[in-house]
Amino acid sequence: MYFALTCYIATGVCGATQGEGKMQTGLSVSDQDGSTFAPLVVIELAHDTKEEAVAWLLKRIRDKQQDGGAELLVEQLSPEDQGGEKDNPNVYVVGASWQRLLVGAEDVGLFKEFNDSTMRGFTCANKENFKEFQGDGDGFLSMAECQYIIKHELDTLRAKDEAHVPGYPKMKLYPGKSVIRRYQSKRILVQVFPLHEKEELKRLSSSWYKNFKLSFQPLDDIRHYFGEGLALYFAFLEYFTMALIPMAVIGIPYYLFDWEDYDKYTVFACFNLVWCTVILELWKRLSASLAYRWGTLSRKKAFEEPRPGFHGVLGLNPVTGREEPLYPNFKRQLRIYLVSVPFVLLCLYLSLYVMMIYFQMEGWVLGMHDDGPTFWTGVLLFVPSVIYAVVIEIMNLVYRYAAEFLTNWENHRLESTFQNHLVLKVLVFNFINCFASLFYVAFVMQDMGLLRQSLATLLITSQILNQIMEAFLPYWLQKRRNKKAHKRLIKTMADRELPLADQVKLEADMNTYLGTFDDYLELFLLFGYVSLFSCVYPLAAVLVVLNNVTEIYSDALKMCKVFKRPFSEPAADIGVWQLAFEAMSVIAVVTNCALIGMSPQVKSYFPESHSQLIMWVVAGEHLLLAAKFVLTFVIPDIPKHIQIKLSRLEFESLEALKKRKMLESSGIPKKTDK
Amino acid sequence: MYFALTCYIATGVCGATQGEGKMQTGLSVSDQDGSTFAPLVVIELAHDTKEEAVAWLLKRIRDKQQDGGAELLVEQLSPEDQGGEKDNPNVYVVGASWQRLLVGAEDVGLFKEFNDSTMRGFTCANKENFKEFQGDGDGFLSMAECQYIIKHELDTLRAKDEAHVPGYPKMKLYPGKSVIRRYQSKRILVQVFPLHEKEELKRLSSSWYKNFKLSFQPLDDIRHYFGEGLALYFAFLEYFTMALIPMAVIGIPYYLFDWEDYDKYTVFACFNLVWCTVILELWKRLSASLAYRWGTLSRKKAFEEPRPGFHGVLGLNPVTGREEPLYPNFKRQLRIYLVSVPFVLLCLYLSLYVMMIYFQMEGWVLGMHDDGPTFWTGVLLFVPSVIYAVVIEIMNLVYRYAAEFLTNWENHRLESTFQNHLVLKVLVFNFINCFASLFYVAFVMQDMGLLRQSLATLLITSQILNQIMEAFLPYWLQKRRNKKAHKRLIKTMADRELPLADQVKLEADMNTYLGTFDDYLELFLLFGYVSLFSCVYPLAAVLVVLNNVTEIYSDALKMCKVFKRPFSEPAADIGVWQLAFEAMSVIAVVTNCALIGMSPQVKSYFPESHSQLIMWVVAGEHLLLAAKFVLTFVIPDIPKHIQIKLSRLEFESLEALKKRKMLESSGIPKKTDK
Repeated sequence: MYFALTCYIATGVCGATQGEGKMQTGLSVSDQDGSTFAPLVVIELAHDTKEEAVAWLLKRIRDKQQDGGAELLVEQLSPEDQGGEKDNPNVYVVGASWQRLLVGAEDVGLFKEFNDSTMRGFTCANKENFKEFQGDGDGFLSMAECQYIIKHELDTLRAKDEAHVPGYPKMKLYPGKSVIRRYQSKRILVQVFPLHEKEELKRLSSSWYKNFKLSFQPLDDIRHYFGEGLALYFAFLEYFTMALIPMAVIGIPYYLFDWEDYDKYTVFACFNLVWCTVILELWKRLSASLAYRWGTLSRKKAFEEPRPGFHGVLGLNPVTGREEPLYPNFKRQLRIYLVSVPFVLLCLYLSLYVMMIYFQMEGWVLGMHDDGPTFWTGVLLFVPSVIYAVVIEIMNLVYRYAAEFLTNWENHRLESTFQNHLVLKVLVFNFINCFASLFYVAFVMQDMGLLRQSLATLLITSQILNQIMEAFLPYWLQKRRNKKAHKRLIKTMADRELPLADQVKLEADMNTYLGTFDDYLELFLLFGYVSLFSCVYPLAAVLVVLNNVTEIYSDALKMCKVFKRPFSEPAADIGVWQLAFEAMSVIAVVTNCALIGMSPQVKSYFPESHSQLIMWVVAGEHLLLAAKFVLTFVIPDIPKHIQIKLSRLEFESLEALKKRKMLESSGIPKKTDK
Repeated sequence: MYFALTCYIATGVCGATQGEGKMQTGLSVSDQDGSTFAPLVVIELAHDTKEEAVAWLLKRIRDKQQDGGAELLVEQLSPEDQGGEKDNPNVYVVGASWQRLLVGAEDVGLFKEFNDSTMRGFTCANKENFKEFQGDGDGFLSMAECQYIIKHELDTLRAKDEAHVPGYPKMKLYPGKSVIRRYQSKRILVQVFPLHEKEELKRLSSSWYKNFKLSFQPLDDIRHYFGEGLALYFAFLEYFTMALIPMAVIGIPYYLFDWEDYDKYTVFACFNLVWCTVILELWKRLSASLAYRWGTLSRKKAFEEPRPGFHGVLGLNPVTGREEPLYPNFKRQLRIYLVSVPFVLLCLYLSLYVMMIYFQMEGWVLGMHDDGPTFWTGVLLFVPSVIYAVVIEIMNLVYRYAAEFLTNWENHRLESTFQNHLVLKVLVFNFINCFASLFYVAFVMQDMGLLRQSLATLLITSQILNQIMEAFLPYWLQKRRNKKAHKRLIKTMADRELPLADQVKLEADMNTYLGTFDDYLELFLLFGYVSLFSCVYPLAAVLVVLNNVTEIYSDALKMCKVFKRPFSEPAADIGVWQLAFEAMSVIAVVTNCALIGMSPQVKSYFPESHSQLIMWVVAGEHLLLAAKFVLTFVIPDIPKHIQIKLSRLEFESLEALKKRKMLESSGIPKKTDK
């Protein structure tokens, strides 16, 4: 069983293992010249790609940088004819010499630890001054970094004066067009993915999730293997879980002793308010600390290439001055405002319509139960909620596909704007879909008992569904698929080291990890359940904590066993999600204030004047919002000691510049003015 | 009369006049070596300064840059014994050679127009590629820029290993301490100020305010003479006035035909809401355009020196690694939270107390008028408001001094944090002091007639007081002071060209302009009057427009005639004031929504349920706030075409770097990995 789980992970191919700082030469590929190199990245072309196109691509990848090539090492994976199965012959492994990788590290603006323990942008000129740089630099870069560099170099491999891809007269090229993007957009390039590293993955998984022990996650190791973007997600997941613990601890006695006493929840609501503001502010500081330690905090973003799907009429890009497809902005705006926005609004209407049906069903079932209460009608009481929770999940899924299609059709030039528009669409719908019913129960029906019940049902159902859909289903599918493949493999060889070709084939068949979007979305909704309404159902925090603990394990499992290794993504923060969580916490202030205003306890202070009660609640809410705003300004986003380190670096570079200029100018003879 | 106005302005001394691009050598000073230079900046030391200290300072200013000096030209102003008056002999004029100024321009990171019409950081290396660079660079820099450079070079003149200032064993120095700051903090240095340039000032003032014509201000010329900070203030003043015109135009018919019909103001309030959000967003874009044109948009801020008043125990600055006074942050925090905050709160309480007295007076007078209305009791009705307006102005002034003292005592290291703390203190108090009574009338007394009357009285009184205090009083004082001085001058010489010594003396006696703080504060309060409550008094916008038009003229007069020329201050935006105005516009949403909710028109829609009315108003207000927030995000702060220009510059520098590296690395022999 254990064997079946691990043997489809590629064996130690390359990459400095953190402790040893020395490259493992476990597997290697022979170069054209006969010398060997460590394969890092796999390129798979469609099996019917014309030979000229393949040959041209390989030549361009191998060409020297002066000649406009990528100067990487690339070899075809020898297609072994095994058991009559027809493998795709167009699979190539890419590697690079250490010298080339170091140059690439400078190109991508990698930050590494300097001798004085600060993080600095790596430059080949003073490479000896970086910590852990030994010999010729072998082992200085982690495997994930090497793979990121190779991906960057492949992405920025540009066409020169070829008019089209050899063999494909219709695949137009223009000077400066990214070759890989062109192959991708025409589906000739099936996939590019980095290889796993068996030994390191084994170590990582055993310290991460194999042993069920109470400890923090090995964030540095996760970052070392998967990159900063994913490590920040796991850091946030862990932080969020820890931050929920005080709430859960307070929630349990509330749940146990005040189950029917809705009055007491005002204290809990106040706690809620402070809590969700403070944790988000503190997370910003923690995330800045992590990003500093990992060298992504002051890293500059490179210029983004157009997305593979982007199309338009050839014109001059005003920024780069290069010829590239341009798509007029007003057309995009028209598509957004005349199609996407109405579609989203329609979906929101549909979602609210389904919600009203749910409440009708609910009322109908309740009526039946009140007419003649039996055990079965008691069970039936929960049926509408469960159905509604399932329908919500389905609608979310369907909408997600529609949103992706629409955002794609809007034809955004950059991947980042594409992502922002997609996130916005999905967030708004998910928010309405998941929380509209709760808002309706809380503020229109004003039924706290029903609110509590709906919250519990929604929370539990969506958690169970999520865990199944997200990790265990793909895991099970993966296992089933691998079993077939392995039976054959185990027959042919007994030792545990698989030949490279088989590993590549195994990894190529694994699912592709589509990024942290869905994982953050799930956390966002959980945060909503906890911050918006949990004061009426204090057990929510406990449930979310439990969910998060299993989430950490299932996400870890999924990253290590189910998916292809993703390219590491440098990230300095959780990006647009910070904003989304902050927006949620603002909404939480509003709902919690409203819930406090509706509590019988508070109402009893204003026995005769209902409108005065509302005025006071509104005044309090405005004060809280103002305080929240001030707090955001007062708490610095970056901890003082990191701020000092950053300023020192900046100061030093300024001083160095000044000194250099002084030296240069001291040679120039001085004249006084007449 | 005209002569008396203009002749205390220094005659053309130096400086490239914009049109001619050639240095005027009108007046000049003889150097030690006998060569002449154009005086730009005046340094005045106390008349009893010890000679060693003076000699040492002059030596350090003259020393070559390699030796740690400022490499500037400095000469004593020959003290002429005129009419028995004892002039201060320790007045020095500072200049520099063009070569030195160009090096300084690179030091301060000046942006100038490049050949391709983009703004780029000036470097001596490719000076020939900048527009308007001719010959040896004579006339390339404006006089204001030269003076700014000299100020920067003086400020960054640092002590080497001297333990104290020669002749003053108690004036301790340490390596890296700014010499000028030390002289300043010990009051040996009386003042440093740049000289006016008569010809240019004459041209500027005639195009700016001499001819009363309908046209925009000559912003580029203002920037050319006074620098970006002040030009942005005048640009904002003008923009704000223009933005008010639609409001004023709508306001007049409202005022004429609906004077007693309070119901109609809901439309005006809605207009108000949209208006104050939109104009602030558009201003950001306009200010970015101006800042780009003036080359301050992408300019980096230099490291700030400690303020002259900052004191502490010598220690190592963690950023620069230099020895300098350090003051523990917790002590400062203690001072802020245990002294300053309680003091501010006490003042706010006092202000509210005075307000309550005003309302008592108001009620008392009203009672008298109702008992037996005569003409005099009718006049008496306005007396409390006028008294209150005067008291408010006085309290604002007194508080201002207290705030400055306290902020100084808080011992902030940087001028910018000092300014921020001062602005915050003054803003909060001014806001409460000026608007509390209006809030009280509007929302506690709910008396729209009284609100209208108070608003009108406050607005008119404060405007009249401000114009008097701010421009005409100093102008009158200045004139009186100058008359005496001039009588003597006119006797001794008949031609209009004054000798340098007399000009310097005249300018040294002029008032010092203390920065744009008070000017912005005034605009901020006017913005408050217009945006918060003007829907009940539509004439407010008209009054503010009239005030602003005179303000432009009086401010222009004050800058050109009353004050010493200020050093130009590079600025990319209006800084903390943008935030203050935005905060005001958020408060305006709240007050306008509340005023709408209180209008009889809206109230009539909810005849039976007062609380439902409130709920709807609150819901609408929340929606508006959310929309405002979204709008801020959606409207880009920098116009697209400027964004493109900035990206292109960044892209070009990246490409250039890449090319340079490619060339460098192509020489290194390549090895493949074993």
